[in-house]
Amino acid sequence: MPTIIDIAAKLGVSKGTVSKALNNSSDISETLRKKVVETAVEMGYEKNRVRRNRAQKLCIIVENMACSNESDFGYEIIMGFKKLALPAGWEVDIVEMTKEEQFKISYDMFMMQNEYRGAFILGFALTDPWMEELKTSRTPAVLYDNYIMENPSVSYIGINNEEGVNLAISYLKELGHTRIGYLGGAMESYIMRARYYAYFHSMEYHGLSAEEELTGYSYHISECTQKYLPVLLEKKVTAILCCHDALAHAVLNHCLELGYRIPEDISIIGFDDAPFSAYTTPPLTTIRQDRSALGRCGYYALSSLLNHTSISSLLLRAELIKRQSAGPVHTELTGKQSVKTAEISPSHAEPGKRQSAG
Amino acid sequence: MPTIIDIAAKLGVSKGTVSKALNNSSDISETLRKKVVETAVEMGYEKNRVRRNRAQKLCIIVENMACSNESDFGYEIIMGFKKLALPAGWEVDIVEMTKEEQFKISYDMFMMQNEYRGAFILGFALTDPWMEELKTSRTPAVLYDNYIMENPSVSYIGINNEEGVNLAISYLKELGHTRIGYLGGAMESYIMRARYYAYFHSMEYHGLSAEEELTGYSYHISECTQKYLPVLLEKKVTAILCCHDALAHAVLNHCLELGYRIPEDISIIGFDDAPFSAYTTPPLTTIRQDRSALGRCGYYALSSLLNHTSISSLLLRAELIKRQSAGPVHTELTGKQSVKTAEISPSHAEPGKRQSAG
Repeated sequence: MPTIIDIAAKLGVSKGTVSKALNNSSDISETLRKKVVETAVEMGYEKNRVRRNRAQKLCIIVENMACSNESDFGYEIIMGFKKLALPAGWEVDIVEMTKEEQFKISYDMFMMQNEYRGAFILGFALTDPWMEELKTSRTPAVLYDNYIMENPSVSYIGINNEEGVNLAISYLKELGHTRIGYLGGAMESYIMRARYYAYFHSMEYHGLSAEEELTGYSYHISECTQKYLPVLLEKKVTAILCCHDALAHAVLNHCLELGYRIPEDISIIGFDDAPFSAYTTPPLTTIRQDRSALGRCGYYALSSLLNHTSISSLLLRAELIKRQSAGPVHTELTGKQSVKTAEISPSHAEPGKRQSAG
Repeated sequence: MPTIIDIAAKLGVSKGTVSKALNNSSDISETLRKKVVETAVEMGYEKNRVRRNRAQKLCIIVENMACSNESDFGYEIIMGFKKLALPAGWEVDIVEMTKEEQFKISYDMFMMQNEYRGAFILGFALTDPWMEELKTSRTPAVLYDNYIMENPSVSYIGINNEEGVNLAISYLKELGHTRIGYLGGAMESYIMRARYYAYFHSMEYHGLSAEEELTGYSYHISECTQKYLPVLLEKKVTAILCCHDALAHAVLNHCLELGYRIPEDISIIGFDDAPFSAYTTPPLTTIRQDRSALGRCGYYALSSLLNHTSISSLLLRAELIKRQSAGPVHTELTGKQSVKTAEISPSHAEPGKRQSAG
């Protein structure tokens, strides 16, 4: 295994400089620190090499995703990962991460200081500081729902969102819907972008008209329900596809409050099959991600990286889960809906009538 | 395990009809046979159930791809697959397949009659009869380099062709090339289409002009070298990306015969890193597919299907292998090239001067 001296020799700097860089000392430039850390990682340097027979450590880095309880979205993903990692002799730490912490320490440095051989990263946005680093890092990382181009040390796992969205649109078309709207999340998320564009592709594929006016997206669920939903209803959509189940649930409740019947007047389809989605009223039709399988595939991709087989992307099939929030379009709907549209617009846009969703 | 009687009961037909269908008897309609076979597969029916402790069998179905010798493209793929399948207790048969045989027997029937639990399918074209069946079949199949939408019993494995093409174009751009041509294979191949479109995407991504006139494609290598290559040279390309190494090798030889120096006058990049590509003169710069890893991932995807985890696609990273067929663009090239262009066109298009590549 290479020593600090080897790294210093390779870079043509002093042993002290390498030591400072690897110990996060403040009197060294960021550029030089990055160079030292990257070289150390590339050469396979590990700290505390005197400690023998220590456990092999991996980490699951989590941001913006609940995962502690069985009802949390991330729970099954983590269980799926651990189910394979622990019997293979790995120790697995769960690390909650914020943008602020990422600004404080680089990804490579974080991994090296904690002696993690690889990371499974959940819930990162495109704006997370480490996303930039992951373009060139040599420390193995598997990203759930994020794709980094060409870096052979990083893999993307998730479900095939194009297929997922297409399953929903195909089903709605079968049910007779042609005016199908889309409500989505913030475009700072790789996966929210993917689903948004998939909606347009799928509508086109099915010969249905997808105007931008039939769509809306925001980080805030309340902005979707208050700003975009009324526009969609006014535009006489008979079905709405939502980018995730929490949004679908909020849209469903909002429609019910406005006097729409679900699914008789409006069909609603969610995405993810979150643990609560079978328990809404009516239960949500949604696109399922097999979370346990995602965790298992995450481990497979990470162990492949550690064995020098570099997966670019591993996408699982999505599955349509039919429940009661989507149904056949009603032919007498147009008349009924015009009345309701008049009801909600613009008076329902008043602050007093707003409902904070979620 | 279900019996013929169970299948008959489910379909509301006689036991004799089911037996006829499963034994490929001729006095039964194709529609009914298909229905019976599909139902049998879905119910988990297996023939010869009296034989106990028989080996679990998988097959690797090969078309249009040599794989018997170490120097054949498919050899390492099959070895990679077997390396994991055999220790896991599977028997693995290699089956050479033609379009004609596919017309004679359906995929499901073929798999059932031979007691194969799943197939790894190499080298199929979009026009192969079984490709249509694979859209709805329930017999697990992993396709190398072919994507079937939404069917949860089928997976696609390969390399990320967008990334592969982009590695080549990035590298050529670094070397100063801006006039980059593309020669491809028949559009009846999923992967040839993918690489062709990837060329346009990548050129656009790099701000380079990609005119259709700078491209050509054909099933026949000789058509590429005789019909399209002269046009590309006339259009003053300084580099040519080829969709596979055999084509790149033919283009390279053709250019040398025409008096071009490789890479001083024309840079050539292949695709696949076929076993011979290090031995051409000059050795080919190419995009590597890790064939052993493809085989291992093929087995992983197939065993996932058999364990009810459905992978839509598993794409490996491509790798640029730099050898001597690509180099920096020469600034004095334009003048030199005009002369050469005059030499080859149209006189070199005469039959007597044609060279069959290969």
